[in-house]
Amino acid sequence: MSSTQTWQPPAIPPLSHELRATLLARIDNKTKPPGALGRLEEIALQLGLMQGTTAPRLNAPVVLVFAGDHGFAAEGVSPFPPEVTPQMVQNFLAGGAGVNALARLSNLPVKVIDAGVAVDLPPHPDLLVRKVRAGTRNALHEPALTPDEVRLCLQYGAEIVRDLAQQGTNAILPGEMGIGNSSAAALIYSALLRLPLTGCVGVGAGHDAAGVARKLAILTRVQQRHPHAEAPLDVLAAFGGCEIAMMTGAMLEAASRRMLVMIDGIIATAAALVAARLRPAVLDYAIFAHASGDEPHRLALQALGGKPLLELNLRLGEATGAVMAWPIIRAAEAFLAEMATFESAGVHGKAPV
Amino acid sequence: MSSTQTWQPPAIPPLSHELRATLLARIDNKTKPPGALGRLEEIALQLGLMQGTTAPRLNAPVVLVFAGDHGFAAEGVSPFPPEVTPQMVQNFLAGGAGVNALARLSNLPVKVIDAGVAVDLPPHPDLLVRKVRAGTRNALHEPALTPDEVRLCLQYGAEIVRDLAQQGTNAILPGEMGIGNSSAAALIYSALLRLPLTGCVGVGAGHDAAGVARKLAILTRVQQRHPHAEAPLDVLAAFGGCEIAMMTGAMLEAASRRMLVMIDGIIATAAALVAARLRPAVLDYAIFAHASGDEPHRLALQALGGKPLLELNLRLGEATGAVMAWPIIRAAEAFLAEMATFESAGVHGKAPV
Repeated sequence: MSSTQTWQPPAIPPLSHELRATLLARIDNKTKPPGALGRLEEIALQLGLMQGTTAPRLNAPVVLVFAGDHGFAAEGVSPFPPEVTPQMVQNFLAGGAGVNALARLSNLPVKVIDAGVAVDLPPHPDLLVRKVRAGTRNALHEPALTPDEVRLCLQYGAEIVRDLAQQGTNAILPGEMGIGNSSAAALIYSALLRLPLTGCVGVGAGHDAAGVARKLAILTRVQQRHPHAEAPLDVLAAFGGCEIAMMTGAMLEAASRRMLVMIDGIIATAAALVAARLRPAVLDYAIFAHASGDEPHRLALQALGGKPLLELNLRLGEATGAVMAWPIIRAAEAFLAEMATFESAGVHGKAPV
Repeated sequence: MSSTQTWQPPAIPPLSHELRATLLARIDNKTKPPGALGRLEEIALQLGLMQGTTAPRLNAPVVLVFAGDHGFAAEGVSPFPPEVTPQMVQNFLAGGAGVNALARLSNLPVKVIDAGVAVDLPPHPDLLVRKVRAGTRNALHEPALTPDEVRLCLQYGAEIVRDLAQQGTNAILPGEMGIGNSSAAALIYSALLRLPLTGCVGVGAGHDAAGVARKLAILTRVQQRHPHAEAPLDVLAAFGGCEIAMMTGAMLEAASRRMLVMIDGIIATAAALVAARLRPAVLDYAIFAHASGDEPHRLALQALGGKPLLELNLRLGEATGAVMAWPIIRAAEAFLAEMATFESAGVHGKAPV
């Protein structure tokens, strides 16, 4: 693995804007008033521009749950102990977690990536072991990852997507599991959005007010330990985690291959934020799935120009938001592919507007 | 048909509130932080209370597209001519309309009801002919429906649901097609919410500003023609239409049988408004699917306490909003039925909050 070489984010092709007029005409000629399918029409247009075709299709979409542990979880930033990360990985692999129940409804396979779980996990056909290290270092005392480890995460993420692309996948739904990773996300938001940490620390996996205050106190010390973490890769190195960095690599690679990237919730948005700072065009291939209602997430979405499809008050991660938004993407694909035109259906009196 | 007898809305059983604590405990013991599935948890609770079980299941859901014509469509209240209603019915039956493309994704059958289309339609296995009259009368000159015709609509709607219930259906997704029916909905909103008509007239199927002004002028005259239309059934009689009244009957019957009623968009919400004025408990069995962003719809939802699941800027009707929200309902059912518990998955460290 050539992790010590200089890493460059992949080039991302521009959207096929020359198809815009043809796609819009195709959408407008469906048997409905102009614009009546609202955001489905926007998505259909985006899919066409992404894929460079007036007949976009979604092939072999995959849910990718990146798992990693966080050194500073030992400080009590989460109400859950770190042992829960590998336990939840086992739960994903057994099909019992939230994302499994929801993904089955859309026939979405769920692959789990050990990006940096603290303990070793038994082999499983749906587990990809890409462990960069056994949990990040405790960022309260030292950088969570070395620059080489960050690059390795990015490369592994890219390779996973490359392999999927070679099997025909043209859409990914990345998500994550990692006790403590809402803390890493808060630190990333604060650094990249230049916001005070107070505005970036949310309830995570269920803190009460006292828990949030304790989390904020710890993260303030973590942040003070890394005063120069400003560039995207430096931020990933300072705060981690492996799963976030690997998602970033996956998102960039997917966009470079004109694949759709569904952006899940708060943690996945942190990965998208890093990716967008490295290659803004990654957002042309992204659709934001879900707004959690958390203020820091709202600010990150605003910075990224993201208009999430859903607001269901989810705060589970695991790609559950992306999975819940997936039927909307399928609906956009389906109306464009299957709806009759005014002419084919013999419907007259097309609206004059 | 005993339409001349006095019609009484069916009794609606109370929710099984005694199951609330058990259901909440079951939801909280799933492998997730408490509340982390947000609105899915609320829906799972509602389904359990509706069905009177801690293991609710959705059986044989059906999309019901009620179609009817409106006498005042001749006045030009819609940008589409009235002939489009039967043409769109044919489009539904051929599987080419928006609702067909979207319903197929969720394996939802689409049944079309001729509640009052102006012309006769050829028989089709998915077409139920319950034509109360060939289009409503022109409400600019006389009541759109007689009281007997309103009752017949309500009864037909109830019978359709009764037949479905006997085949095992426990959820319906009513929607509609009818050129001019956003005008009927505006008049119903204005009458039942006691709002000025100006605040109730929306863009319908795609009016521009001049079209909306013309529509408002015509509907103001229609409203002035019926100064005493205040009681729910009187409002239906004054303004119609057959498809709205039949949806009202279907919604009430479904709630009386503890069935889930998905409430689609602006027109279906008008039917729900009438139903809720007759039997407020109908709302215990209703889930609002989609907020159009139209101000009158927002006001109606506020009056009904409805919190729609989606905001996708749809304005097509046809039950497309209900169909788009259906995967969310299925997700609520699935997580409750399928997700592991902390104990079964061997996940420890349940959050202390």
